[in-house]
Amino acid sequence: MTQFIGVAEMAKLVRTIGIETFLVELADHIRADFLRWPEFEKMARIATHSTDGVIELMPASDSTLYGFKYVNGHPKNPLAGKSTVMAFGVLADVATGTPLLVSEMTLLTAIRTAATSAMAAKALARPDSTVLALVGAGAQSEFQALAMKAVIGIEEVRVYDPDEEAVDKFVRNMSGSGLKIVASASVRDAVRGADIVTTATAVKGRAAVITPDMLESGMHINAIGGDCPGKTELHPDVLRIGTVFVEYPPQTRIEGDIQQMEPDFAVTELWQVLARKAAGRNSRDDITVFDSVGFAIEDFSALRYVAGLLEIGEHAMDLIPEVSDPKDLFGELLAPAATVVPAKAGTQITARAR
Amino acid sequence: MTQFIGVAEMAKLVRTIGIETFLVELADHIRADFLRWPEFEKMARIATHSTDGVIELMPASDSTLYGFKYVNGHPKNPLAGKSTVMAFGVLADVATGTPLLVSEMTLLTAIRTAATSAMAAKALARPDSTVLALVGAGAQSEFQALAMKAVIGIEEVRVYDPDEEAVDKFVRNMSGSGLKIVASASVRDAVRGADIVTTATAVKGRAAVITPDMLESGMHINAIGGDCPGKTELHPDVLRIGTVFVEYPPQTRIEGDIQQMEPDFAVTELWQVLARKAAGRNSRDDITVFDSVGFAIEDFSALRYVAGLLEIGEHAMDLIPEVSDPKDLFGELLAPAATVVPAKAGTQITARAR
Repeated sequence: MTQFIGVAEMAKLVRTIGIETFLVELADHIRADFLRWPEFEKMARIATHSTDGVIELMPASDSTLYGFKYVNGHPKNPLAGKSTVMAFGVLADVATGTPLLVSEMTLLTAIRTAATSAMAAKALARPDSTVLALVGAGAQSEFQALAMKAVIGIEEVRVYDPDEEAVDKFVRNMSGSGLKIVASASVRDAVRGADIVTTATAVKGRAAVITPDMLESGMHINAIGGDCPGKTELHPDVLRIGTVFVEYPPQTRIEGDIQQMEPDFAVTELWQVLARKAAGRNSRDDITVFDSVGFAIEDFSALRYVAGLLEIGEHAMDLIPEVSDPKDLFGELLAPAATVVPAKAGTQITARAR
Repeated sequence: MTQFIGVAEMAKLVRTIGIETFLVELADHIRADFLRWPEFEKMARIATHSTDGVIELMPASDSTLYGFKYVNGHPKNPLAGKSTVMAFGVLADVATGTPLLVSEMTLLTAIRTAATSAMAAKALARPDSTVLALVGAGAQSEFQALAMKAVIGIEEVRVYDPDEEAVDKFVRNMSGSGLKIVASASVRDAVRGADIVTTATAVKGRAAVITPDMLESGMHINAIGGDCPGKTELHPDVLRIGTVFVEYPPQTRIEGDIQQMEPDFAVTELWQVLARKAAGRNSRDDITVFDSVGFAIEDFSALRYVAGLLEIGEHAMDLIPEVSDPKDLFGELLAPAATVVPAKAGTQITARAR
């Protein structure tokens, strides 16, 4: 029996549980899977490149469950009213090969990326961090803010994006979140005095959103937008000054900000920090950098978490969200007033309770 | 907008079109894609092995469409009432990354395998072939028989399987097909005098279902059951005596019957024969061998064909067939009396017309 959870149902599930609880519980699942990292069969994602973008398959498995995610990256999609990134995933039983769950993962990927960021920040940032600088107010921004609030205890978010409408959307979505939100006039403004800096930009090419002169002692940099070959967010000196942590080095050296560095540039695997096999932050003054590109085990954890929330027998049919504003995934799917209409007539949405 | 076609709907679609027409049209699609072989991005399947079986992802793409299939292979599944092989696939738009179609492919894989066999036999077997020896009466057998009838003009099928119930099932399913069916007492009996010999067995290990002494001049051998590392059906001398044709050499050398041979054992790529870039059969007396393991382009063709049959807006929810007899996929899904019950209450099956 294969279960299916579509976009409307996933949105309903997240709203029912509460986004912050969902983020905290998912972060716990990701952390638990990182702690047993050697048990997983791992590989770099399998990418098929074309003129306009990339389509990837990201498998990961342990001895009992096999998961994979289909995800695309098409930067020009927003011009056509489509999301840059769309995803779905499958969880299967290793013993029999039976697919157990097919799930939308466009929304779920945004949530798992934020949960991973917060899980990493909990291990790497100063424990008394309260101020987050958020560079980029795109589809990932609200998830990042709420994950850092729920998992770390962030109280204030300073946001900067050259797109003022994106900032307005972020501020609107975060009203009532309990976070103090400050719209900053520049990256420098946002970063000044922040404990954690998250870069989640859609810059193209070798950008240097964060330069060494912006760094302050004790800062934690969470770089999630430098995530494919040719796309970076951090000035190389930021990587040289900080201590760099990564998910899976063979993949990050190709896709992450460290693609700018020499092939043997020193990095620490995050799972080893969590498992106390490697040092994380050594002092309050250390500058730590999580060069995150997104790894298949995080998707595995997300599918595993969602599968555990479902009762047998859920079915629906809308695999990919059809959002009118690709930058406002959060608002259209999770905001209290959002009504997600299934993609097609004939789709059946069943009620969900935890 | 993503379309979904589940098992019940696929079965209905095939019955509406007619299995033989479906096989012929699909063989044409596969042939058309083989003819433009160099246009495809190709890779060997991505396999995750476990104690009990294997789970594979098989992607293939051209400049406009991307397809992949998820498929497992778990030999012990029938003991638990499950199919050894279960599959589903996805077709996506290369320009935007949008998934266009999610389709059951357990049934569709059986059909595409038979269509590929017949398409290859049309290119390699003697044009006046009328007698097929079918070694193995498993889930693939009826599809093979009907594809050879519809595409090649086979009139008589001699079937052998050590499992007499499987043979009975095959004979029952083929009554009314217009084929003369003969249940043979042995492999040797079945093969004697046959124009085409198809081996589709579930033998384990290095078997030699067909030995050199069974070969007759002009025979075409269609070996589809030697399809994973450690599993072969043909005696090595059969491969030495015959001229061997394959789908994608890097994959076949690992998975096919030629895994028994030296790494540079001479093979001809089938697509080159179709495209008249390489010779096929040179005379009526040649013995030809198609060492088939199943390649991602065949699944791509199948998804492309099915997508073209659908009208916008079809939806259902049963991804994997739940058959009571795993050896009788054909009977439970395609026989006139078959009523395929969707996996779950709440599943919606919409009517299909071509």
